Amino acid sequence: MKIVTFTRNGNTEIGEWIDDTIYGLAWSDSIMSLIQRGLTPNRNGEYYPLDAVTLKAPLRPGKIIAIGRNYAEHAAETGNEPPPAPLIFSIFPSAVIGPGETITWHSSIAKEVDWEVELAVIIGRRARHVSEENALNHVFGYTIGNDISARDLQLRIDGQWTRGKSLDTFCPLGPCIVTRNDIPDPQNLQLQMYVNDELMQDGHTSDMIFDVKYLIAYCSWMFTLNPGDIIMTGTPPGVGEGMTPKRYLADGDVVTAIIEGIGELRNPVRILSD
Amino acid sequence: MKIVTFTRNGNTEIGEWIDDTIYGLAWSDSIMSLIQRGLTPNRNGEYYPLDAVTLKAPLRPGKIIAIGRNYAEHAAETGNEPPPAPLIFSIFPSAVIGPGETITWHSSIAKEVDWEVELAVIIGRRARHVSEENALNHVFGYTIGNDISARDLQLRIDGQWTRGKSLDTFCPLGPCIVTRNDIPDPQNLQLQMYVNDELMQDGHTSDMIFDVKYLIAYCSWMFTLNPGDIIMTGTPPGVGEGMTPKRYLADGDVVTAIIEGIGELRNPVRILSD
Repeated sequence: MKIVTFTRNGNTEIGEWIDDTIYGLAWSDSIMSLIQRGLTPNRNGEYYPLDAVTLKAPLRPGKIIAIGRNYAEHAAETGNEPPPAPLIFSIFPSAVIGPGETITWHSSIAKEVDWEVELAVIIGRRARHVSEENALNHVFGYTIGNDISARDLQLRIDGQWTRGKSLDTFCPLGPCIVTRNDIPDPQNLQLQMYVNDELMQDGHTSDMIFDVKYLIAYCSWMFTLNPGDIIMTGTPPGVGEGMTPKRYLADGDVVTAIIEGIGELRNPVRILSD
Repeated sequence: MKIVTFTRNGNTEIGEWIDDTIYGLAWSDSIMSLIQRGLTPNRNGEYYPLDAVTLKAPLRPGKIIAIGRNYAEHAAETGNEPPPAPLIFSIFPSAVIGPGETITWHSSIAKEVDWEVELAVIIGRRARHVSEENALNHVFGYTIGNDISARDLQLRIDGQWTRGKSLDTFCPLGPCIVTRNDIPDPQNLQLQMYVNDELMQDGHTSDMIFDVKYLIAYCSWMFTLNPGDIIMTGTPPGVGEGMTPKRYLADGDVVTAIIEGIGELRNPVRILSD
C-alpha cells in the first residue's frame, strides 16, 4: 500500500495512491498519528485524480537518525575507509519538505550544496533492544529521502554534520510511504539520483555495508526508536563532493531521487542571494 | 512563573510551583501543547504539597540544538580553542528524562560518561531569521539541562557527537520551566554541578562566548526554531574529561545540576553490566 499526505482545497488529508488515483482514507489526523496509534485505515469513499491533489511530505518525523558512509564506494569517493560500525549523525526534523517543494538556501550561509538519495525507513512500532531477526517487524514502511548536504558547513567548520544537513528544506521526503508488506526485502532496491537530466547516482541497496535490519537493531540498543522516527540509511556513490572537479547544486537545478517500488521525489533548487 | 509537569495518582498534569506547593493549571494537555498554542493558563483551584506529586521532565522537545565549547575555559580544559562560530550538534529528544529519573547505560556500550550542566532555552514563538534584538521575545522560558556525554562514543568512534550525547536517559531536563519574564537576563545566572557532594562545575552564564540572544538569532538563520524546541547553550569548565586523571560517572553516583533562579536537577546513575 502506498500512503500519501496530500492537500486539496486547502485541507490536509491522507490517502492511498493507486496508479493515477488518490483514494481518501478514513482518518482525520496525520500519518504520524496513524502510525502512533497503530491503525490500519479504511477508505472513506472519496477519490481524486492524482493531478487534482498536491502531495506533501508524508510525515514530520520525531527524530531522524542518519547513517554516514554506508556504501563502500561512496565512502571511497569522499576519501574515507568504510566505517567499522554505523556512523551516526542526525538531521533536524524541521528540515523536512515534500515532493515538488523548493530546496533553498542563502548563498551567504552555504555555497557547496550536494545531493544524496537514500532509502528512508519509517519506524512503526517502538523498538528498544530489538534483535536483527525481529527488526523489520518494527518498520511501518519506506520512503525516499534526499539528504541535501552543504559540504562547506558539514566538513569545513567544526566537523559536526548536523548543521550542514539540517538547513530548512534540506530533507525532502516522499512522495509516499510504501508499507512494509509491499517491500519484503529492503536490500533489493535500485536507487538513482538525477540532477536535471543527468544521472548522478545509480546504486542498489544490496550494497549497504550495514543493512536495514542491522541498523534498526544497532540503533535500538542506544536510542529508543519511536513510531514515526526515521532512519536514513546512507547514500550510494555519485555525489558532487566525490567528483573531479567537485560539483554542487546551482540555482534552477531540479533534483530527482528515484527508488524502485517507491517512486520519484523531485525538487527544484533556488539559491537566494543576500 | 515556574511551570512543572507532574504526576499524581497516575495522571500527568501541569502546574505552577510556588515554595512547597504545586497549584494545578487549567490545561488538560502537555506543556508542549500549551507552548504551541501560546496560552497563558489559569489555575484550576487544585493544589498539592510538593512532596505529594512527582515532577517529570517539563516537556519532550521537538528538536534539541546543542552548542559545543561555548565557555572558553571549558574549550581549553578539553584541549580546544574557542570556536569562531557556534559549534552546533544535536541531541535526540528520546534521550530526555526528568528530575529524579535514573541516568543509565550498559557498560558494553559506553564506559566514559561525563556530566555537563547547561542553561536550556525553550523556544516559545516560531523563530526564523530573527535579529539579536528580537531574539529573546521568542523564548518561552528556561530550564536546567544535563548534557550527559559518553566521551568514548563522542570522541573516539567517528567524531560525530550526537550518538554519545543521545543515549536513552542522557538528557535530564527540569525540574521546572521558569518563564522568560522571571529571568530578564539569562546572562546573569550561576550554574553548578555536583557529583555526589563534590562541586565539579561552578560557572556563570556571563562567560558564554555566544550569548542566548546571539544563539537564537544565529540558529534561526539556518533552522526554523519551533515552539517547544530547545537550545542547550553549552557547559562551563569542570567536566570529568578535562581532569587529570580523567574522571567519569560511576554506578551509584548522584549528579545535581543547579542554576540560580531555576532550581536543582538531581539524577541517580546506574550502570548496567551485560
